[in-house]
Amino acid sequence: MTGFEPYKDEKFNPSGEVASRLNGRVINGIEVHGAIIPVSFKRVRDAIAKNIEEVKPKIIINLGLSPKITCIRVERVAINIMDGGPDNDGYTATDEPIVSDGPAAYFATIPVKKIVEALRKEGIPAIVSNSAGTFLCNCTMYHTLHYIATKKLDAIAGFMHIPYTLKQAAEKPPRSFLGMPPPGMPIDIIEKAIEIAIKVSAEYLRSRSL
Amino acid sequence: MTGFEPYKDEKFNPSGEVASRLNGRVINGIEVHGAIIPVSFKRVRDAIAKNIEEVKPKIIINLGLSPKITCIRVERVAINIMDGGPDNDGYTATDEPIVSDGPAAYFATIPVKKIVEALRKEGIPAIVSNSAGTFLCNCTMYHTLHYIATKKLDAIAGFMHIPYTLKQAAEKPPRSFLGMPPPGMPIDIIEKAIEIAIKVSAEYLRSRSL
Amino acid sequence: MTGFEPYKDEKFNPSGEVASRLNGRVINGIEVHGAIIPVSFKRVRDAIAKNIEEVKPKIIINLGLSPKITCIRVERVAINIMDGGPDNDGYTATDEPIVSDGPAAYFATIPVKKIVEALRKEGIPAIVSNSAGTFLCNCTMYHTLHYIATKKLDAIAGFMHIPYTLKQAAEKPPRSFLGMPPPGMPIDIIEKAIEIAIKVSAEYLRSRSL
Amino acid sequence: MTGFEPYKDEKFNPSGEVASRLNGRVINGIEVHGAIIPVSFKRVRDAIAKNIEEVKPKIIINLGLSPKITCIRVERVAINIMDGGPDNDGYTATDEPIVSDGPAAYFATIPVKKIVEALRKEGIPAIVSNSAGTFLCNCTMYHTLHYIATKKLDAIAGFMHIPYTLKQAAEKPPRSFLGMPPPGMPIDIIEKAIEIAIKVSAEYLRSRSL
Repeated sequence: MTGFEPYKDEKFNPSGEVASRLNGRVINGIEVHGAIIPVSFKRVRDAIAKNIEEVKPKIIINLGLSPKITCIRVERVAINIMDGGPDNDGYTATDEPIVSDGPAAYFATIPVKKIVEALRKEGIPAIVSNSAGTFLCNCTMYHTLHYIATKKLDAIAGFMHIPYTLKQAAEKPPRSFLGMPPPGMPIDIIEKAIEIAIKVSAEYLRSRSL
Repeated sequence: MTGFEPYKDEKFNPSGEVASRLNGRVINGIEVHGAIIPVSFKRVRDAIAKNIEEVKPKIIINLGLSPKITCIRVERVAINIMDGGPDNDGYTATDEPIVSDGPAAYFATIPVKKIVEALRKEGIPAIVSNSAGTFLCNCTMYHTLHYIATKKLDAIAGFMHIPYTLKQAAEKPPRSFLGMPPPGMPIDIIEKAIEIAIKVSAEYLRSRSL
Repeated sequence: MTGFEPYKDEKFNPSGEVASRLNGRVINGIEVHGAIIPVSFKRVRDAIAKNIEEVKPKIIINLGLSPKITCIRVERVAINIMDGGPDNDGYTATDEPIVSDGPAAYFATIPVKKIVEALRKEGIPAIVSNSAGTFLCNCTMYHTLHYIATKKLDAIAGFMHIPYTLKQAAEKPPRSFLGMPPPGMPIDIIEKAIEIAIKVSAEYLRSRSL
Repeated sequence: MTGFEPYKDEKFNPSGEVASRLNGRVINGIEVHGAIIPVSFKRVRDAIAKNIEEVKPKIIINLGLSPKITCIRVERVAINIMDGGPDNDGYTATDEPIVSDGPAAYFATIPVKKIVEALRKEGIPAIVSNSAGTFLCNCTMYHTLHYIATKKLDAIAGFMHIPYTLKQAAEKPPRSFLGMPPPGMPIDIIEKAIEIAIKVSAEYLRSRSL
């Protein structure tokens, strides 16, 4: 489980906050390690590798903030491209591959649709997303899946986009999203959503290994 | 305090639910009466008049659901027009005045901006809205303010639009709002928002009468 | 017919451009006078009065830009409030009445729905709008209708919001509207839309005077 | 150049219309073949293969309608998944690979960013898109790029999403996109956009072969 440090002028990143909150918790017999990773094209790969080597996780869910979404988005695919910025190092990428000889894309290996269904059943709006963008979120997801694939690790991984917290949304310019505040979700519900995703992934892993 | 009965095929109306929840509660020394009113151009006027006669409220806040909003909307103005439908009686109005010799509009008399500020301060996204539409929400607000004006009652009134509950949003077609679920807010937070609006209105009333 | 001068940092205002283009044209026997008015709470009233006194129009349609609309919006009502800014004089209004003893609102007297229908029939997306906001557009519409009402002039008036031109939209930040460019409409089509509105208003005036 | 037949209850598909309009035209020395392909997961692959075998094109641009976009979208990537429906055969796919042993994704080989820049320069709003969805548009793009890759053809290919025509938008439910009509673009401008894309692709091909 990872979340990001705050991006640029933002003081708070709910993805990092949720990773911190869940760090050390035990969910359905799964011990959760929550780490904060840098918003940096250059440094994120090593941060991911280090975390995986240390924790040796069975399930990896990276989290990222998406500022204009009304729901939890579970990403289906990561593509081999970096295009955007500047990141927190001030670096802007323009149509560069993440891994120069890597495949064009990796599909998430966590049970994307089962997670979405479970979230909705618990009253938390959620969708499958077909693009994690071309900035750090996609980059993190690609690096993670590529690391697992090339090291032939026995782990599943994926990425989830979360909205602003409700409190953050209340502090944003009040007409900045279609004449309204941007959408937000209480942090406790975002946290619960990630717990559910971990549970569903753990059940999937168990059922698969039978 | 009023909310609406469910509209058409919806099984649940959060505006009615909040009115029921708050019915009988005492907030800052204010006793709250919560009533459910019909989604009916024809019957809503009498329902409002009957409630006012029975309860003799000092503060009237009518609530209504707005399906695509990310925040609480405090309405500034009600206009003398009915245009839309069908309502729950099957009636569709086309450019009819609500009160044939009534003024073109009434401004809300609750402290609209103070309510919005207080909500934001509590981490609940909120805006002032300049249109309550031309359906039952606007009609209810107009009738209420017209009744107070013509009967020269010593009461303040206004209208607040609330979003879907988070649970409702999770049950809606998942791509129905810009490829996402529609925005939603937990019912407990909507309830808290209305409590805040009542408190702020009560304080305003007290400060005004000093 | 009026449009606005460019607002703040914008170099171009399509509402002013259309007013200039139509200035001097004769449409269905109606001679069109197009004037540019200032984006100024303080100065707009006199600009309107002067134009009306000089031209003595039978039909007044004020135009304004609305940056995030996909269609032509024909306004139904102007409310007696100024709230927003800064305008081009640097003035920000906060909940001030436009006319201190004026009525709460005026309804447009041009045939709003007939114009919308005619536009759609010609393949131009259009809707009736129930709020012209609380900035200069609403202010202009209110002043115009108030002037006609208090001077008992034999003229009809209304306000139409137009989108960015397609060219303007192409120059805006490409992710500034829901991850896309803001909506735009070719200037020639906006111009045609206003011609249609003038025609429909003229026909309405003739039919009314029979 | 291909466009789709109308989808389900729609009577008109601007992507097919543009393909028909451009069929036979000569742009910058490039002879354009425009073909209509079926909205069918099962049949689209053979339609694409047949067209390529017959025409032996150097540049393939497939077009598709996206109902809620304000601009031309040039797709960056096609992913190996079918998820959605029903298509015009009544078939709904659920998380099926397009090609069972195919790569996870293909990147477009037309000059995506150059096309976007050229469109904007001509006053036509355009963006790079990172997802062509999981329905027929993505499927068509994937099949085309897979066919070129596996047959080792000397051709470049890509996919462009176009909005509704302005006329179509005017006929849609007038409150169906955020309380407004959906965005639309005049068909002549869509046609011009595709001409520009062909020109830019041809220049790119020439410069590359030097």
